[in-house]
Amino acid sequence: MISLTSLVHDLRAKRITPVEHVEDVLERLAGDRCNAVIELDADRALRRAAELTAAPEPVGPLHGVAVGIKDLIDVAGLPTRCGSAILRDAPPAGVDAPVVARLRAAGAVIVGKLHTHEFAYGPIGDTAATGPAHNPHDLTRITGGSSSGSAAAVAAGHLALAIGTDTGASVRTPAALCGVVGFKPRRGVLPGEGVFPLAESFDTVGLLAADAASVSYAWDAVRGRAPGGWRPAGTGLHGLRVGLPDDPYWTAADPVLADAAGAAARDLERAGAEIVAVSTPDVAELAATYPVIAGAEAYATHREWFTTRRDEYQQATGQRLAEQADAPAHRYVDAQRTRRRLGDRMIAHVGATADLLLTPTTRLRATPIGVSEVDGLGVRPAMLGLTSPFNVTDRPAVSVPVPVPGLPAGVQLAGITVGEDAVLAAAAAVGTS
Amino acid sequence: MISLTSLVHDLRAKRITPVEHVEDVLERLAGDRCNAVIELDADRALRRAAELTAAPEPVGPLHGVAVGIKDLIDVAGLPTRCGSAILRDAPPAGVDAPVVARLRAAGAVIVGKLHTHEFAYGPIGDTAATGPAHNPHDLTRITGGSSSGSAAAVAAGHLALAIGTDTGASVRTPAALCGVVGFKPRRGVLPGEGVFPLAESFDTVGLLAADAASVSYAWDAVRGRAPGGWRPAGTGLHGLRVGLPDDPYWTAADPVLADAAGAAARDLERAGAEIVAVSTPDVAELAATYPVIAGAEAYATHREWFTTRRDEYQQATGQRLAEQADAPAHRYVDAQRTRRRLGDRMIAHVGATADLLLTPTTRLRATPIGVSEVDGLGVRPAMLGLTSPFNVTDRPAVSVPVPVPGLPAGVQLAGITVGEDAVLAAAAAVGTS
Repeated sequence: MISLTSLVHDLRAKRITPVEHVEDVLERLAGDRCNAVIELDADRALRRAAELTAAPEPVGPLHGVAVGIKDLIDVAGLPTRCGSAILRDAPPAGVDAPVVARLRAAGAVIVGKLHTHEFAYGPIGDTAATGPAHNPHDLTRITGGSSSGSAAAVAAGHLALAIGTDTGASVRTPAALCGVVGFKPRRGVLPGEGVFPLAESFDTVGLLAADAASVSYAWDAVRGRAPGGWRPAGTGLHGLRVGLPDDPYWTAADPVLADAAGAAARDLERAGAEIVAVSTPDVAELAATYPVIAGAEAYATHREWFTTRRDEYQQATGQRLAEQADAPAHRYVDAQRTRRRLGDRMIAHVGATADLLLTPTTRLRATPIGVSEVDGLGVRPAMLGLTSPFNVTDRPAVSVPVPVPGLPAGVQLAGITVGEDAVLAAAAAVGTS
Repeated sequence: MISLTSLVHDLRAKRITPVEHVEDVLERLAGDRCNAVIELDADRALRRAAELTAAPEPVGPLHGVAVGIKDLIDVAGLPTRCGSAILRDAPPAGVDAPVVARLRAAGAVIVGKLHTHEFAYGPIGDTAATGPAHNPHDLTRITGGSSSGSAAAVAAGHLALAIGTDTGASVRTPAALCGVVGFKPRRGVLPGEGVFPLAESFDTVGLLAADAASVSYAWDAVRGRAPGGWRPAGTGLHGLRVGLPDDPYWTAADPVLADAAGAAARDLERAGAEIVAVSTPDVAELAATYPVIAGAEAYATHREWFTTRRDEYQQATGQRLAEQADAPAHRYVDAQRTRRRLGDRMIAHVGATADLLLTPTTRLRATPIGVSEVDGLGVRPAMLGLTSPFNVTDRPAVSVPVPVPGLPAGVQLAGITVGEDAVLAAAAAVGTS
């Protein structure tokens, strides 16, 4: 994989030029075997790389860095197809989404659009008009979704930085399954305009990169702040209380994932954090509000198309939308009330003991494409259940890979009393042993 | 009617003592013919009045002022029955709602609970377990609702100040129909805890008093600010642009109400304001989101009771709830989206031309109890349609009486670019000619 911080270092030192880097990235993406790429913007990317190569000074912290964009987010001049045949004839977007414009202003070179689970409505990455995305660690397995192409392209070493979206899992789960770092901030911290909505109560834009320091660097860049650069592990976590939730809700089905969380806890402790056990009252009831709210909001967006062009959706998406057609309003209203009530209560309860929660990111590692259940556990809930509580409560959260034999394993750090910066600082300590 | 500012003056000058005032109020309320009173708290009120009479210094700006509370709001020691047989056996509230606690801290004497349309779910005031409220100007006519008892008690001269709630009309409409001033701030400006919810997207707590200066005084008191006292009309409105909307949506069915708005415009102009014509794009579509959102939220609150104890609701309430039982979630989600989109757009459009909007408060004046339609116009929409747009857009708004022959007529001032204080300052200029 390409570490963004190393790449920036090399670009600054002119050990590599933007043209060389972007040419290399375009070549890799053109030869991608993961079905991660929807469309390349090669000519424009090369022109921009040439401008940046000729620039006397860096234009910003991402000067010359090739970045890939999930095909749910507008890039001027390219259609936003959202992985769906419904939008096969979408016209090119007129303007960049603000988050894309920020990347360009920071010197990034947008190289193209990446695979998404159809309309981001699923944590698997197997459902799209262009076929399933393939996990670079085992091409027969899922990437996780919905930011499937973003995770796969970083994991395959094509790109140092990719942009995704996260409504219930969609940055963190593919990051976990592909062995990269995926970070979602709180809602509204990054602008959501120009992003096709899934569920407005939860939608966020997030970042995927090879390691936590790289995500931190990109986070500073898209926030328009001076880069903090590498935040070294082993310092700065003193006084931070990291909670290991004891509710069986958080148990992973794959024992390797439980071990990974234990290893991450030891890494964090070595870096100065205090590890505490915490209870997470009513988390199952809280998490159960997610599909009710997200389903109603997604259906409201798609109803017109769904009722007139259902056969153009992938079958799995059509089935999920059909389940929402008769959902009653009072159930949605109740779910929003329950979410606020139990969410506030859980955050207050956990926050009395812990500043962050540490959990596995998923209950299973990457499953074979086409398998919907493992030992009676649905793959979809397994890939969503541990991440969605932090969309429901709108907390910043990151998935970080922990070295294990075989397929990648990700652990999740979610900020309870702390915000994005502290979550990323803690993430940098994970996997360091 | 009792002007609060005059009353405060008299109490300060000891021309009347709190005991004398509270005794007088209790006697009047006991003899009320409007069915405005649900329950008096006479013993406690008299004890508190005696304490305040003996106090060496005023405890606050409402020192010794008797205040009545809509029976949707918790007063410690009294049940909150919400005008419904469903809550006939409700236990006494354990603590005062924060807004009641603020009144007490400002020196007010809470004298009892006042009539509400059942669960505040209607702008009429005719539907309650204790029977309809009667308009003091004509006992055969409605008060408007849902803060029916609050408006009637002030209009009848029983009280100088009463507290109501306003979700779509419920402070302003009964104020208009009874000839008093009724003011609703933006959401969250006054605390909503301890108030039985109707629709959380719109619920506000508001104030009713005899005149605008009295409401301004009470507003300062409940906000914990030094009272501005009487804000004299004829000054201070220079530079304020008051918009008269030209969309037929705002047309009153009763021509007296259109005349009243014209008279109010002349009053405001004399006080220095500039009167401008404005368009209010898509206001009908915007207003149509109100019953969808409020209906779903009300049904979610009542569903459990409604499905097990429907016959304990008043028939009209049961019918309205029944209409909501099968409302689909996507319709609610769409209505919330439309409200945000069109609301933001209308406020921006109007705000480019006008700082406030001036409209009639209602499309009809007080109608006979039991009449649900006048010349093909439903009484309910006539009493709600001109007020609910400012709940949907969450703007501060006040209804002010304009002197007309016969039944009272109210005009509404809603802040578009300006907040609560400017709305109240403008209100003080209305009806001064």
